[in-house]
Amino acid sequence: MSQAPEQETVYNRVAGGNLLRLSAISDGIFAVGMTLLVLGLTVPAVQSVNSDTDLLRQLSYLLPAIVTYFMSFLTLGIFWVGQQTQLSDVQRANRAYTWIHLVFLLAVTMVPFTTQLLARFHWSRVAVLIYWLNIVVLGFALLAGGEYANRAGLFPPERGPMLLRLIRRRVYGAQLLYLVGVLLSVFGTNWSIGFIVAIQLNFAFAPPIPVLRRI
Amino acid sequence: MSQAPEQETVYNRVAGGNLLRLSAISDGIFAVGMTLLVLGLTVPAVQSVNSDTDLLRQLSYLLPAIVTYFMSFLTLGIFWVGQQTQLSDVQRANRAYTWIHLVFLLAVTMVPFTTQLLARFHWSRVAVLIYWLNIVVLGFALLAGGEYANRAGLFPPERGPMLLRLIRRRVYGAQLLYLVGVLLSVFGTNWSIGFIVAIQLNFAFAPPIPVLRRI
Amino acid sequence: MSQAPEQETVYNRVAGGNLLRLSAISDGIFAVGMTLLVLGLTVPAVQSVNSDTDLLRQLSYLLPAIVTYFMSFLTLGIFWVGQQTQLSDVQRANRAYTWIHLVFLLAVTMVPFTTQLLARFHWSRVAVLIYWLNIVVLGFALLAGGEYANRAGLFPPERGPMLLRLIRRRVYGAQLLYLVGVLLSVFGTNWSIGFIVAIQLNFAFAPPIPVLRRI
Amino acid sequence: MSQAPEQETVYNRVAGGNLLRLSAISDGIFAVGMTLLVLGLTVPAVQSVNSDTDLLRQLSYLLPAIVTYFMSFLTLGIFWVGQQTQLSDVQRANRAYTWIHLVFLLAVTMVPFTTQLLARFHWSRVAVLIYWLNIVVLGFALLAGGEYANRAGLFPPERGPMLLRLIRRRVYGAQLLYLVGVLLSVFGTNWSIGFIVAIQLNFAFAPPIPVLRRI
Repeated sequence: MSQAPEQETVYNRVAGGNLLRLSAISDGIFAVGMTLLVLGLTVPAVQSVNSDTDLLRQLSYLLPAIVTYFMSFLTLGIFWVGQQTQLSDVQRANRAYTWIHLVFLLAVTMVPFTTQLLARFHWSRVAVLIYWLNIVVLGFALLAGGEYANRAGLFPPERGPMLLRLIRRRVYGAQLLYLVGVLLSVFGTNWSIGFIVAIQLNFAFAPPIPVLRRI
Repeated sequence: MSQAPEQETVYNRVAGGNLLRLSAISDGIFAVGMTLLVLGLTVPAVQSVNSDTDLLRQLSYLLPAIVTYFMSFLTLGIFWVGQQTQLSDVQRANRAYTWIHLVFLLAVTMVPFTTQLLARFHWSRVAVLIYWLNIVVLGFALLAGGEYANRAGLFPPERGPMLLRLIRRRVYGAQLLYLVGVLLSVFGTNWSIGFIVAIQLNFAFAPPIPVLRRI
Repeated sequence: MSQAPEQETVYNRVAGGNLLRLSAISDGIFAVGMTLLVLGLTVPAVQSVNSDTDLLRQLSYLLPAIVTYFMSFLTLGIFWVGQQTQLSDVQRANRAYTWIHLVFLLAVTMVPFTTQLLARFHWSRVAVLIYWLNIVVLGFALLAGGEYANRAGLFPPERGPMLLRLIRRRVYGAQLLYLVGVLLSVFGTNWSIGFIVAIQLNFAFAPPIPVLRRI
Repeated sequence: MSQAPEQETVYNRVAGGNLLRLSAISDGIFAVGMTLLVLGLTVPAVQSVNSDTDLLRQLSYLLPAIVTYFMSFLTLGIFWVGQQTQLSDVQRANRAYTWIHLVFLLAVTMVPFTTQLLARFHWSRVAVLIYWLNIVVLGFALLAGGEYANRAGLFPPERGPMLLRLIRRRVYGAQLLYLVGVLLSVFGTNWSIGFIVAIQLNFAFAPPIPVLRRI
């Protein structure tokens, strides 16, 4: 705006170049997000519990909150692994790449909000749609990171195209499944939620455990 | 699911390979967990305190919360040291190993909840059982990490079996003690709690201080 | 005070010399700040929502909070990139440099407070002034860091003057724009807010995206 | 307890040896602690403010909370610099050293609580005493770390005694001043608080700024 372009260019080359710090702030945001989720679990009040049976009943009321909690943790874990994979392949960062990841991290901080919304209004197509939009932003921000990294030469030259192909196939594949999930809500939101949870469990646990994969 | 196995295999090899970031997110989650505990200590209200004697009495009401706070911090400290030990022995991580530790970290984020539950309902066997289950998951997730690391060759080849033996003995030994602790609840939950606190103090402080160890 | 100057000198040379830890605590503070912002978004209460239409209306009430949320995240992102750039240029830290950055971090932790103040009282010149003061402290703390780093030889000798010139031009340029923004409040605070948001969007996104820059 | 001493010895040698992770969890705990402090500043309610004058008056009520906030941040900054200095001098960590620092970190997480207590009950000698006790634990935990590091050979051999002497002089010197501060409460707690704030400002800012030091 008020600055000469050549100065901006220098600043952009200098700014945001530290991959280590991008990783550090990402890990911090994921860690806080994952830990803050537990604040959604409120310990039952003293006066409401007079016996072990009371306590079990009170805890059963917490069940939806606990399921939501696990689901959010899973979602955050999946995208943390996805981002870490990309950042570990990148040789350096620049300012544009850093801002793409800051947009990704903005979507990360929204996860506790959208998941809680879905947990509370699981019958609502609006809640399913918002949750899905959050996942869409997460996926396509990672894809944008990969596309930019390839175009700007941040990947090792010989592996760039292969890595981008991997990211593309994974994001498009996953997002297609999530789209099917959200479309299932014409039959009922529970179909959507069940399908999305199944996709997420698959992404988190199915591939790395050979025994389960063979089943 | 919708992806060819060879692609998944490549992704798994690439994904989650960064040991540094696994450590970073772990430290973040432990740090937030340890610090959030202090939110359980509420400063007495202004209108309830008119003298030093009032303040002392109000603070005495906080005593159970303070004990819980110290106990949670101790538990988190013990498992933080345990995980750090394992991660410092591992030469690299992969996706499956990362997810085992994410399950471990999920259990870490539960500690403030289960400890608060135990503090509030210390007379309840259900609360003791839930607290114990949390410790069981923590212990066996660390063990699963060690078993997997040995099987997948993540430890240095010459030290792997020795390290796994160490982890096994330590987890089984500790979990046997915790089991004795939870079984003591047939005589009363206070026996359980006292025994578990004693185990934890031992794990944290007894071994490294030679003077105390000789007593 | 009670200490001999030569001892203090040694302590100062030793203390605060670790650049890595200054980066780490900075990333931690930014990460927590960015994530805590989401606590400002409260999920609508169950009893207030009986249909998708209800939910959409309730969510529309959250719109100002969401805008504030994005604006705070943007502000924190801009200054995180700015600080990271400076720290990646510095070869080492010392105690004075560390304390300059701790003052910067104090201002960082104020951002959620001043932004929320502005969001709630967007008609108030006092709120605009306080928000602006926060940005002034952030900018001039970064400038003070650059000035000190150059004077104390923390930059690489050959690049120091160039780096300082870059920081100066950028801080003075940006602060002049922010000053114009706050002065616009004589016509109405909305003019101020709109202008400041435009400056921030420019700093975050305009420069690195060539397509947009050409428009 | 149930474990052979030789096994424990091996575990102790292996456990807690990672200096990097001790730094990381410390930075995390300090960062969260420093950022959580801002939650003590509540934005005035909409209905209580109809004009700029109202807002200024409401903000003036926040003044004690803001002073407390700055004071806590200062205290945490001082001890963060102190711990960082020690950790950057140590060549490696072991389990006992790690646990000494975990006790230090436990005291760190108490700072928001004890400072808030002092802010709310600034007329109370009990509150002054508790705040002082927190600082005593912080100081002597750092000293214990230095003593242990020297005894266990964690410092570089040639610099160990010098470093320990430095830590001792600094901790004893500071603690003597804090003791004077707490004793001043016989004349009134305000004398204590003013004196302690003066000590802390001196530790944070006086030494590194040559101009001020000459005054």
